[in-house]
Amino acid sequence: MRTSYAVGVDVGGTRIAAGLVERKGRMIKEVRTLTPATAGPFAIVDTIIGMIEEVTVGVHSAEIAGIGMGLPAQIDFLKQTVEFCTNLPLAGVDMRSLIMSRVRHTVVIDNDGNCAGIGESRFGAAKGVRDFVMITLGTGVGGALFLDGAPYRGARGLGAEIGHMLIDLDGPPCPCGGNGHIESFLGRPAIAARGREAASEYRGQAIRDEAGGNAENVTADNVVQASLKGDEVAREIVLAAGDVLGEALVGVVNLLNPKLIVVGGGIGESCPSLVERAAEVIDAKALAGRRDVRMVQAELGNDAGVLGAAALAFDEHDSREGLHR
Amino acid sequence: MRTSYAVGVDVGGTRIAAGLVERKGRMIKEVRTLTPATAGPFAIVDTIIGMIEEVTVGVHSAEIAGIGMGLPAQIDFLKQTVEFCTNLPLAGVDMRSLIMSRVRHTVVIDNDGNCAGIGESRFGAAKGVRDFVMITLGTGVGGALFLDGAPYRGARGLGAEIGHMLIDLDGPPCPCGGNGHIESFLGRPAIAARGREAASEYRGQAIRDEAGGNAENVTADNVVQASLKGDEVAREIVLAAGDVLGEALVGVVNLLNPKLIVVGGGIGESCPSLVERAAEVIDAKALAGRRDVRMVQAELGNDAGVLGAAALAFDEHDSREGLHR
Repeated sequence: MRTSYAVGVDVGGTRIAAGLVERKGRMIKEVRTLTPATAGPFAIVDTIIGMIEEVTVGVHSAEIAGIGMGLPAQIDFLKQTVEFCTNLPLAGVDMRSLIMSRVRHTVVIDNDGNCAGIGESRFGAAKGVRDFVMITLGTGVGGALFLDGAPYRGARGLGAEIGHMLIDLDGPPCPCGGNGHIESFLGRPAIAARGREAASEYRGQAIRDEAGGNAENVTADNVVQASLKGDEVAREIVLAAGDVLGEALVGVVNLLNPKLIVVGGGIGESCPSLVERAAEVIDAKALAGRRDVRMVQAELGNDAGVLGAAALAFDEHDSREGLHR
Repeated sequence: MRTSYAVGVDVGGTRIAAGLVERKGRMIKEVRTLTPATAGPFAIVDTIIGMIEEVTVGVHSAEIAGIGMGLPAQIDFLKQTVEFCTNLPLAGVDMRSLIMSRVRHTVVIDNDGNCAGIGESRFGAAKGVRDFVMITLGTGVGGALFLDGAPYRGARGLGAEIGHMLIDLDGPPCPCGGNGHIESFLGRPAIAARGREAASEYRGQAIRDEAGGNAENVTADNVVQASLKGDEVAREIVLAAGDVLGEALVGVVNLLNPKLIVVGGGIGESCPSLVERAAEVIDAKALAGRRDVRMVQAELGNDAGVLGAAALAFDEHDSREGLHR
C-alpha cells in the first residue's frame, strides 16, 4: 500500500525533534523537547516514544510508512547498530529494536549528518544533485557525502566525519582526541574562544555587548550576531573561519570533485559571509576544472534531520514493498 | 564475441608502457620507452601507436577487446576528454580520437591514478575489496577511490587528487600552486630536500654516499635506499614522512571509512617502514570503529597502470557487447 506519512526523529545532544512528514516533504506536525541526556538510554527511548505518539495521534497506523531516526552517533547502517556515541549514552544500545518493540512501525536509524544530507538532497538545497558534500558547522562539525546519487557511508556504514580531517599538523586539540582537525578550528567552541579573546580587549566591545557585557560569556553565536550587525572585529573572526573552511574544502573538492557543497548547521546557516569567503578560497585554489563547484547554504535549517529521517523511512518502506520512488 | 586480449597503455611524464594483457590479468608482452615529452602531442601519439603495434603484432584483430590508456592528466571520463595536464602538452588534445583514427580498436582513456587503482582492484592488493583508497607516492602524490565496488571519479569524472588535500595551513608550497598539501610533504622533491639537508651535515654520510658523495645530488630514492640499509638518519626522514602520511590518512579514513588503503608509487612500494608507521598513526588516531582499516603496499608495481588500463578496455568492450564480467 502506498502510505502517506512517515515519522522523522532527529536526536541531538541537546534537543530531540520529531515530525509527521508527507511524501513530498511537507511537515504536518512537529514537536521538540530537551534530550534527557544524563538520565540513561531508557529515558531517551521513553521520550522518543512519547514524541512519536504525539505526532501520530489521530493518524491511522496503516497510513504510516515507518519511522526514521537520526542519532548523533556512528551508526553501522547495514547492521542498524549504534557503534559509538560521544554525547549520549547510546553506544551499543539497540535503539532500533527498543523503539520497534513499542510502536507498530518499522524503524530505520542513521547518523544525524546523513539524515540532514538526505533531507537537503530530497527536499532542500541539493535537490536533484547526484554528487555533493554537506558540511554542518555547529557545536561539532559533521557532514554527509552524496556520491553517484546516494548517501555514501563507507565500508562499515559509519558515514562521513568531515569534521575530523586534518588541516593543520600543529593545530589545536580536537574533542575527538586528535589535533588540527577541521572541527578544532570551526566548531562553536573554537569560534567562541576567538570571540572571548577579542571581547577581552577594547576593540571587542560589540562582541562583548552581545554577551551582556561579559567577555567570559561570549559564544560563537554572539560572534556571528555581532558580525551580522556590521562589527569589523567579529567580521574578521568570521572571515578567518571562512578562510580555514575554504582551505579545508579545497582538499575535499580535489579529492571528490563534487558538483555542490551545502553548508549547514547553526553557524553555517546563519553566516553567509563565512560561506562566501570559503567559496572565494575554493575558486582561487582548487585544482583547475574543479572550481565550478557551487557552494550554497542549507535550506531546511533545523528541519533537515527530521525530513531526511522521514525520507529514509519512506525509502525503507518502499523497498520492502517493492515500490519505486 | 568473447575477446581474449586488451592493450593497456600507461603514459607517464617520463616513460610510456604498453602491454598486451589477457582477461585474467596476465601480461603477455610489454614494452616501455621514454616519453617524447617536449616534442609535442603528435610525437606522443606516434610513439603510442608504435607501441600498440609492437605488442599486438601477430595477434588477430578480432581477438582484441580494445585499448585502455592511462594519462597523467585530469580526464573528464564521461566525455573522454583531457581537461588538464601539468607535465605533458596534452590538455585539450583529443587523444582518444587521435589514437582511434589510426588503430582498428575502441580506445578508452582515464586518469593514470584511476588505472593503477583499477589494476590493483582487479588483479592486485585490493582484489575483492569494494571500498578502498589508493594513494601513490612518487614524484607527485596521486590516488584513486573505489567506493561501493567501482572507481569514483566525481561529478565531472576528474578523479581523486588525494595529493592535493590540505594537511598544514602554514605548510610549504605545492607544485599545484597551493600550499601545505599532502604532495608538498610526501612527493619525491620534498623527501629529497630533507635528504639533501641531512646529507650536507656530518650525520648524513650514509645518504651522501648513496648520491655518490655529493649532498646536492641526493634524491628521494637515495634516502629510501639508505634507510633500507639501516641508516638511522635516513630512517628518521622516512618515519617522519610516515607520520605525515598517517595523519593525512586519518582524515581520509574519518571521511570515507574505507576497508583498505593501498599505498603504491615508487616511494610507497619500496618503503615498508613508511607504510607501517602510517598504519600505526591511523590505528592510534582515527575515530573509533574506523581503525580496523587494513593498510597494504600495492602489489603490481609499474604494471598496475597497464593492467588497469587493459581491464578498462575489457569492461568497455563487454558493456558495449552486453556481456557481463
